[in-house]
Amino acid sequence: MNWGVIATWQMAHDGVVTASEMLKDGATAGDAVERLIQTVENCPDYQSVGYGGLPNEAGVLEMDAAFMDGNTFKIGGVAGIQDVTNPISVARKLSDEQFNSFRVGAGATKYASLAGFAKQNMLTKKAHDDWAERVKEVAANNLSPYDGHDTVGAVTLDTAGQMTVGTSTSGLFMKKPGRVGDSPLSGSGFYVDSEIGGASATGLGEDLMKGCLSYEIVRLMSTGLTPQAACDQAVYDFADKLAQRYGKCGAMSLIAMNKNGEWGVATNVEFTFSVANDHQGERVYLANPGPEHNTVITPMN
Amino acid sequence: MNWGVIATWQMAHDGVVTASEMLKDGATAGDAVERLIQTVENCPDYQSVGYGGLPNEAGVLEMDAAFMDGNTFKIGGVAGIQDVTNPISVARKLSDEQFNSFRVGAGATKYASLAGFAKQNMLTKKAHDDWAERVKEVAANNLSPYDGHDTVGAVTLDTAGQMTVGTSTSGLFMKKPGRVGDSPLSGSGFYVDSEIGGASATGLGEDLMKGCLSYEIVRLMSTGLTPQAACDQAVYDFADKLAQRYGKCGAMSLIAMNKNGEWGVATNVEFTFSVANDHQGERVYLANPGPEHNTVITPMN
Repeated sequence: MNWGVIATWQMAHDGVVTASEMLKDGATAGDAVERLIQTVENCPDYQSVGYGGLPNEAGVLEMDAAFMDGNTFKIGGVAGIQDVTNPISVARKLSDEQFNSFRVGAGATKYASLAGFAKQNMLTKKAHDDWAERVKEVAANNLSPYDGHDTVGAVTLDTAGQMTVGTSTSGLFMKKPGRVGDSPLSGSGFYVDSEIGGASATGLGEDLMKGCLSYEIVRLMSTGLTPQAACDQAVYDFADKLAQRYGKCGAMSLIAMNKNGEWGVATNVEFTFSVANDHQGERVYLANPGPEHNTVITPMN
Repeated sequence: MNWGVIATWQMAHDGVVTASEMLKDGATAGDAVERLIQTVENCPDYQSVGYGGLPNEAGVLEMDAAFMDGNTFKIGGVAGIQDVTNPISVARKLSDEQFNSFRVGAGATKYASLAGFAKQNMLTKKAHDDWAERVKEVAANNLSPYDGHDTVGAVTLDTAGQMTVGTSTSGLFMKKPGRVGDSPLSGSGFYVDSEIGGASATGLGEDLMKGCLSYEIVRLMSTGLTPQAACDQAVYDFADKLAQRYGKCGAMSLIAMNKNGEWGVATNVEFTFSVANDHQGERVYLANPGPEHNTVITPMN
């Protein structure tokens, strides 16, 4: 039976290896995507997701996450949540709610407490020190502070044919309090339909939400396009349109997998990702925009 | 020159009349949609939007709003904002920001204060009393508390060809703190492209975000469908799919207008809306789902 997993950025590779083992052994797509993203959230070395993530402008670590089930379209999401070890797990739990399944700010944090999720101070000493250094640099040099926004987004397919997608991020570095990007927003940060495929995004959330690119990629796959053709068409067409109409276009990197475990990516910046399926072992790739609305993909290991 | 305006629910009619006058006189689509939505926000009689809106389960009025410009795709949004007279105006102001343009919870409320927006206690005595009564009823009769969620959503087209969309709501009645629906989410609660048209949604946000229906309607209009055909196809196809895959489907009512001022709606519940353009005076209509994936529309005045 087919299975597969794809995730944004090299930092997701350990999680992809774990998810692959689980999917090979018959685990559900939901369990695999949750474990994959927890692996990234739990690692203090990644400055853009979970523990060790960089705080907002005010020094507070606010996190966003979402989970979607491609069989039922159930969605759970959190935004601006604090002090929770695994935002992805809170999002997944919320996806079982008919009402109140997307929660933000203090209400999201309170929900996680009442539901019994593990709490911890997610701000590491290193993240705090890097933040303090950055505050000084920005003040001294009048820099744009917004140069980090590496969301982990992942799509999984299990041997029963179910697909899921998950996202988790601490958001734009030095963001203003309460700022939310595309990661917890359906259609922008993620979308999945088990009868078609799934997609997820990383990049400048403010621009990604202008294009609803995850939804558009899934829709294009439903017309018969390969995941790669769907990513290329959605991302490069919209990046051009945004440059023309808005005058600029932030970073946009999208990943996709279809119901057969075939995958694709498109990006307007240098981008790494990790992928595996039932006939390709786990591997990290480097992607770059090509000359003709195509994507140049090279293995990194 | 063409102009037009369409908005969800009869409560928006006074705002539609005002917006029509403005558009006739050459006002921009953005000014017209902001004024329309302010009119609804400012009226204490409407229990689902702005002043007089019903509070969440904890008795706190939390509001969501968004603004999108169809020329540039600029989006601004707020979710879970408190104590602000006109959330739509905060959202519109945020749409001018390249970063941090979607703000939630305490961060959104703080932004509005710092940006100088009028603040007020938005909880009227009537809304408080209705909430207290409802809390008692729900406790006594084990009722589902979630029966009110009437977002104002509006699409405007000005004589220069620019289109905008705006939304504002106090959200699902008796929602949990921090709950956010589709209204401030691009593609779900709203979407607009001045070269095609715009759409907006009202209903159960948790289900609307499963379908990204506002984006889908605009996309269908781009293929040459009339607004009515686009609404019918997007809404009824997805409502069927959700009933099949999720086992249930909440209320979904969508409005759309294209770049020529032609309009359409589709809904799976009884739904009122108000519309005007350069050859049809302001009028309130009643819409109901028809027998064959069509919509039955009757003038009400």
